[in-house]
Amino acid sequence: MTNPQLNVHGELTHLLATEGLPREILIHILDTAATFVGITDREVKKIPLLRGKSVFNLFFENSTRTRTTFEIAAKRLSADVINLDITRSSTAKGETLLDTIDNLCSMHADMFVVRHAMSGAPYLIAEHLKRMGKHDIHVVNAGDGRHAHPTQGLLDMYTIRHFKKDFEPLTVAVVGDILHSRVARSDIHALKTLGVAELRAVGPKTLLPSEFSHLGMRVFHNLEEGLKDCDVIIMLRLQNERMNGALLPSVSEYFGHYGLSPEKLAYAKPDAIVMHPGPINRGVEIASEVADGQQAVILDQVTFGIAVRMAVMSILAGN
Amino acid sequence: MTNPQLNVHGELTHLLATEGLPREILIHILDTAATFVGITDREVKKIPLLRGKSVFNLFFENSTRTRTTFEIAAKRLSADVINLDITRSSTAKGETLLDTIDNLCSMHADMFVVRHAMSGAPYLIAEHLKRMGKHDIHVVNAGDGRHAHPTQGLLDMYTIRHFKKDFEPLTVAVVGDILHSRVARSDIHALKTLGVAELRAVGPKTLLPSEFSHLGMRVFHNLEEGLKDCDVIIMLRLQNERMNGALLPSVSEYFGHYGLSPEKLAYAKPDAIVMHPGPINRGVEIASEVADGQQAVILDQVTFGIAVRMAVMSILAGN
Amino acid sequence: MTNPQLNVHGELTHLLATEGLPREILIHILDTAATFVGITDREVKKIPLLRGKSVFNLFFENSTRTRTTFEIAAKRLSADVINLDITRSSTAKGETLLDTIDNLCSMHADMFVVRHAMSGAPYLIAEHLKRMGKHDIHVVNAGDGRHAHPTQGLLDMYTIRHFKKDFEPLTVAVVGDILHSRVARSDIHALKTLGVAELRAVGPKTLLPSEFSHLGMRVFHNLEEGLKDCDVIIMLRLQNERMNGALLPSVSEYFGHYGLSPEKLAYAKPDAIVMHPGPINRGVEIASEVADGQQAVILDQVTFGIAVRMAVMSILAGN
Repeated sequence: MTNPQLNVHGELTHLLATEGLPREILIHILDTAATFVGITDREVKKIPLLRGKSVFNLFFENSTRTRTTFEIAAKRLSADVINLDITRSSTAKGETLLDTIDNLCSMHADMFVVRHAMSGAPYLIAEHLKRMGKHDIHVVNAGDGRHAHPTQGLLDMYTIRHFKKDFEPLTVAVVGDILHSRVARSDIHALKTLGVAELRAVGPKTLLPSEFSHLGMRVFHNLEEGLKDCDVIIMLRLQNERMNGALLPSVSEYFGHYGLSPEKLAYAKPDAIVMHPGPINRGVEIASEVADGQQAVILDQVTFGIAVRMAVMSILAGN
Repeated sequence: MTNPQLNVHGELTHLLATEGLPREILIHILDTAATFVGITDREVKKIPLLRGKSVFNLFFENSTRTRTTFEIAAKRLSADVINLDITRSSTAKGETLLDTIDNLCSMHADMFVVRHAMSGAPYLIAEHLKRMGKHDIHVVNAGDGRHAHPTQGLLDMYTIRHFKKDFEPLTVAVVGDILHSRVARSDIHALKTLGVAELRAVGPKTLLPSEFSHLGMRVFHNLEEGLKDCDVIIMLRLQNERMNGALLPSVSEYFGHYGLSPEKLAYAKPDAIVMHPGPINRGVEIASEVADGQQAVILDQVTFGIAVRMAVMSILAGN
Repeated sequence: MTNPQLNVHGELTHLLATEGLPREILIHILDTAATFVGITDREVKKIPLLRGKSVFNLFFENSTRTRTTFEIAAKRLSADVINLDITRSSTAKGETLLDTIDNLCSMHADMFVVRHAMSGAPYLIAEHLKRMGKHDIHVVNAGDGRHAHPTQGLLDMYTIRHFKKDFEPLTVAVVGDILHSRVARSDIHALKTLGVAELRAVGPKTLLPSEFSHLGMRVFHNLEEGLKDCDVIIMLRLQNERMNGALLPSVSEYFGHYGLSPEKLAYAKPDAIVMHPGPINRGVEIASEVADGQQAVILDQVTFGIAVRMAVMSILAGN
């Protein structure tokens, strides 16, 4: 089976998931992002790499924050950005997803940034583009269902490399609602490809998928044990709606067991970094002292996220 | 009576309808559009013709698709595009339409792209601008009530000319809900001006306006007869809401009588082209085999639509 | 106490209110705006002063009109403008205001244009930025609660200076719902700083704050008396929702007492100008004959408003 993310020359043509992404491409994205980190600090934060290109933000699931990061990244590359309000569009009038895509292709779209509640929707679009011979139109998955959120995974890798240099010696703990988290999936696949020493899944049984033991992860249901001697802690956002169901006890009980307090953090290495994809729930999965503390790199993740998205877009447009 | 679309030199100053548009201006728009078709294929799809101009999208009736085509066209001409969310604006607070227009004029607007549920709203704005002496501000009608959708009419003319070269020998059938269709009105007036050999209206009695016989159209209530030996078939979108009323039987019955199936299409000339303004209702007014078939030029219409809108905007800005 | 609007060099670093704005800075903004008035008349209404800068419109309270004026101003300065739909964003998901700000800072925002229903919200953001050492990120208050709307105040000063040259000899009447009006507060503080001869508050007792007598304003409950020999009349918009409460009698009774009719206007000086922040309620606080009459400068205010906002943004970005 061919890799739907790569073209016939083995170059990245869509970014759909960190799973299946060759190590050298992953590293190439991080290296390219490093060249963009400086640009965002300059007086004029704009380079003409995507000038005249039309980037469409197709957010079938609403996310102002993620859409904004892609909009900023595309505008700093000088692209024209068109935000489609999908909930009010032709798709809402009953047009099929692929008819919408065909129409936008006919308007000479260059890139689709797609968020969709349905896992696999960006693949469906990528396959369709291939079938139609549209090899110069690129898809970036901005989050599909519980499946993948690859730019978040990549910016997390960038952040880890920035602070820890090498992946090989690291012990990394992913903590919280891994079952419903596309961020966790994207992080875990990237971390495995980059070869960290130990990868841990920490959380209540009801929020850990059973598949993780055969992914080579160590599973912990106790936060202190799970954090012990970790170099990197990736906290996940707890979706409020999980609280309503039978999956979880109360917020305070959750925080007591799995919330990252200064006391819990002390079990990790003294120089461990604390990451979170945001938006954070203070006092739910993370204490304010930790979120605002010296070890938190949550806002660095946001900064690097712009550079990583610029890197992905410029690599896709160049291939 | 003076033509409200033309200035004192007989040049296009507003695009309000294809009705009353002189043949030479109509041809000039199509010829100008032809120069833009190439640009949208280039690496950098941007020309500075409208640089520094402020184009306002005033969509009093929501249409993400049409708004997007105008936004793309304006951005490729390097204009600044401002989308006004009218439903949440001052107009919603009780300000009159013309007070809103006066305000935007005072902000040095250069062009208004107007969609409105009320037939004639763009005329009202154009007349007001003339009365106020604002001769350098231009109005493009992006669809007003059941009245007109001139850029759709023009892109349809572009598509027909692209595939059929000359209008004179053609037999053109407009099929479906002509009664409620501003697209049909804009097509019919343009086709008459361009002088096609025969113009047909095909549909159930309840969806054909009585005025059409004296417009010189041949009326058919049978699809096979209506399509016989046609060169061009313009299918119209069937609004779902029509089904609720007494105007139409069920969807399946409608498709059986007026849906364009491969069998029905066979009545037309073998090289007939099938057009549709989109979004299509597969299995309602058109079969998927036809929509995706060799004779369909529906996506070409979309591509040409960007070039035609660029042409209209650049002609207006130049006059 | 230090002035939160000024940096350590006494330069404007945030625009939060006209209150506390030194006279020389106020005049500098008006003088800078004068240089931009010409630009908006040019063929290419664009200058590269903010090229590569990212301006975020953070409208926690919806206002399409005000947002549009800032968007136009920023785009004419060549900035990248990002409109955040706050009601659908992370803030709506429970993220705190300051966490949202921290995130946008991490994306290398350069300027926040903030409208908020809560008085003081822009101050909160400005203080937070100072505390975080983000001295190169600027806040413009686009209206906070009943507190301030400084760009409206400044454009009103620009308009008065344009038509009346000097402030010193002027008698200025502010008429209507002063109690709930941030526009009135911003005008009054600016007018006091600029030193008008006489400042009047005109309106029903229920809509005049008690604090105004010690602000040195003359208070009038009779419109004819209040307008007598005025040079400048600033009408305020009457919020419809005030009518529902006990604060006011019916619309027609209000218009009878405080609506600006031609007869009432005759009490002012013959060359008095009539201002209004818009959108106007015809027949409520102002008669159509006056709004459309020779003495109204309401649309000039809109034009100058773009230039004043360009001036504020360019001064902030330069400091």
